Amino acid sequence: MTADAGTPARRGPGRPRDEDLDAQIIEATLGLIDAEDEVTVSRVVARSGVSRAALYRRWPSLTTLIAAALDVGRAVPPDIPTHGDLRESVFAAMFGDPASLSASGYSEVRFRQRIRLVMADRALQKAYWTSHVARRRVPMEKALRAGIARGILRADLDVDACFDAFAGAAYYQAVVRGDRFDDPVTRDRLRAAFDVVWRGMAT
Amino acid sequence: MTADAGTPARRGPGRPRDEDLDAQIIEATLGLIDAEDEVTVSRVVARSGVSRAALYRRWPSLTTLIAAALDVGRAVPPDIPTHGDLRESVFAAMFGDPASLSASGYSEVRFRQRIRLVMADRALQKAYWTSHVARRRVPMEKALRAGIARGILRADLDVDACFDAFAGAAYYQAVVRGDRFDDPVTRDRLRAAFDVVWRGMAT
Repeated sequence: MTADAGTPARRGPGRPRDEDLDAQIIEATLGLIDAEDEVTVSRVVARSGVSRAALYRRWPSLTTLIAAALDVGRAVPPDIPTHGDLRESVFAAMFGDPASLSASGYSEVRFRQRIRLVMADRALQKAYWTSHVARRRVPMEKALRAGIARGILRADLDVDACFDAFAGAAYYQAVVRGDRFDDPVTRDRLRAAFDVVWRGMAT
Repeated sequence: MTADAGTPARRGPGRPRDEDLDAQIIEATLGLIDAEDEVTVSRVVARSGVSRAALYRRWPSLTTLIAAALDVGRAVPPDIPTHGDLRESVFAAMFGDPASLSASGYSEVRFRQRIRLVMADRALQKAYWTSHVARRRVPMEKALRAGIARGILRADLDVDACFDAFAGAAYYQAVVRGDRFDDPVTRDRLRAAFDVVWRGMAT
């Protein structure tokens, strides 16, 4: 038995792979977040069974760890097809199937927790913005630039600001109105907002 | 001395006017919110010196009391001039002077606390939406309808959705990017978003 320990194919319980440790730490952090417990290094260590040293080697600060945990289930979306009906491709990428978000493990409960945590801590908010949200915006920004190159969208567009108007309308539903994305009334409202913004972007 | 108690002109300390009690209760509630203490009826009673019965007579639930406290300093804005340059009047009403917001006592700290509280409690979010945010939207919605009547804005507009796109872009700055409204970069971005949305609304 011990002869196998440490080989790539099989390991003893004392020699987990790095990815296993990552997963254990993230899982422990999410457990604390979901339980609305304050996340501290000591609690993550106790809950994950991973050493403090191993934790700090992976995440130099608690802020980056919480930001990473909050991002579980939220991959950078794939490139948006820029040939064909760009308007519908952008709409689908922006407001498409709300079920796919929950299927990815990014529940509404966790969304609401994420907003609470970032509103309590601007350093966390900025870390989450830089390392996660900003990266997820890239495919959309590329698609909008492709639309400009194709002559569909105005050459003078501030692509960042257009994204903020689309995404902001969606955040407004969840953060201000308290409405759910799978509510048909909400979806109609977002479709109407999208149509107005797109018309303002088009040549 | 006692002869004066209860008369409109002068009162003893035991007979404060109703508005005084309201103010004491709201002030105690805001004190707890600003200190990030959980708001409970017992704590508001202890801090304000107002009786539990008097508190419940004014606010039948803690939710409505917290919603009212969060709204301090945020009046329903005045009507927007609908003759003249409607576009600039709407812009000014929507994104005008950020200093006026802080001057009204509605600080960024309180804004961030408000978002945290409503994200923790959907009943509070809905109460705050119905009794406060929705009411503050009315002057803007009237102005946009006047724009439709004047033929400046498209007749088929979903006025609610347009408001959500404007306001959503602003919330996105504060809630997702973590940027401040008095930052010139933020203001330029909001101006660009406004211009796109308005162009999509115009005939």
